[in-house]
Amino acid sequence: MSTAVIEPVARLIEAFSRLPGIGPKTAQRLTYHLLRAPDAEARALARALVSVRDEVVFCERCFNISDAPLCPICRDPGREDGRLCVVEEPLDVLAIERTGEFRGRYHVLHGAISPIDGIGPDRLRIRELLARADEAAAEGRPVEEVILATNPTLEGEATAMYLGERLDGKVRSVTLIRSFQGRRAL
Amino acid sequence: MSTAVIEPVARLIEAFSRLPGIGPKTAQRLTYHLLRAPDAEARALARALVSVRDEVVFCERCFNISDAPLCPICRDPGREDGRLCVVEEPLDVLAIERTGEFRGRYHVLHGAISPIDGIGPDRLRIRELLARADEAAAEGRPVEEVILATNPTLEGEATAMYLGERLDGKVRSVTLIRSFQGRRAL
Repeated sequence: MSTAVIEPVARLIEAFSRLPGIGPKTAQRLTYHLLRAPDAEARALARALVSVRDEVVFCERCFNISDAPLCPICRDPGREDGRLCVVEEPLDVLAIERTGEFRGRYHVLHGAISPIDGIGPDRLRIRELLARADEAAAEGRPVEEVILATNPTLEGEATAMYLGERLDGKVRSVTLIRSFQGRRAL
Repeated sequence: MSTAVIEPVARLIEAFSRLPGIGPKTAQRLTYHLLRAPDAEARALARALVSVRDEVVFCERCFNISDAPLCPICRDPGREDGRLCVVEEPLDVLAIERTGEFRGRYHVLHGAISPIDGIGPDRLRIRELLARADEAAAEGRPVEEVILATNPTLEGEATAMYLGERLDGKVRSVTLIRSFQGRRAL
């Protein structure tokens, strides 16, 4: 970097550049914006970053992001226990919640099976998903429907296939969806 | 925002969304990335933000960003005092420095004249630019060339025209450039 760039500025450009989808030009633009923005704006961003790391945990039941041991959806007594929607990432929960078409529970895998990246089923929250299904069955209220909403990628499809096989016999039905309008049975 | 979004996450999405060129989708993506990124990455970004605000000031001579009363370029005894390049923003200094074609000094206006936005000459660092020219002349070493490198926008052109008139007689020559390859006299 040119000698014209002073150290704290270079560090912020560098930190922004590490974010996904932020190239060096955007990182520069954001940095210079924050240099001139109202002090409250820059500090609010810094505080929000720290509190996201300090206050956010993963739900111990569904592994969605949470501010407590159980997330707001797992805590909500109004949701249907018999339906379980399986997604790759917390962002997927958000997208589905926004449609307002699903009133069941979630399970967040935190990724998809990808042998080429060394990600096997044991690296995802699959064991915990199977345990949830077993537990519900043992308590005499087996899961009615598991909805597999993994991404329409090779990895997402492979994960759905794998889960379909492992869940067979543990739950009443397994459905693969691309959108909440067009579900199809596996 | 959906009840599925917990408070610290919503705050970070909101803070990212305020940045220029960052839409709500990108803000969400960045937030979820930082939730799962190594702790050091998120904290480095937060620290860099705070130190940019705490440690960065504007150079009292050229108004470029600086970590001291005078910026590294104004402090550099190897630069040509007789050439002064006028730019709108600190980022422009960076871009010109990267070409390696200019070895003079800078003056950062911090914007361009834009009557529609209520930005008159008095809102920019124009008074200080004229004072620099006067001072150099009074000291018997008048500025040889002022290079106007404002942006090729209506506002940038209007600012260059205004500066050309105001600098006339105070400096030896005023040049308007679009790039350091193609300067033309005003």
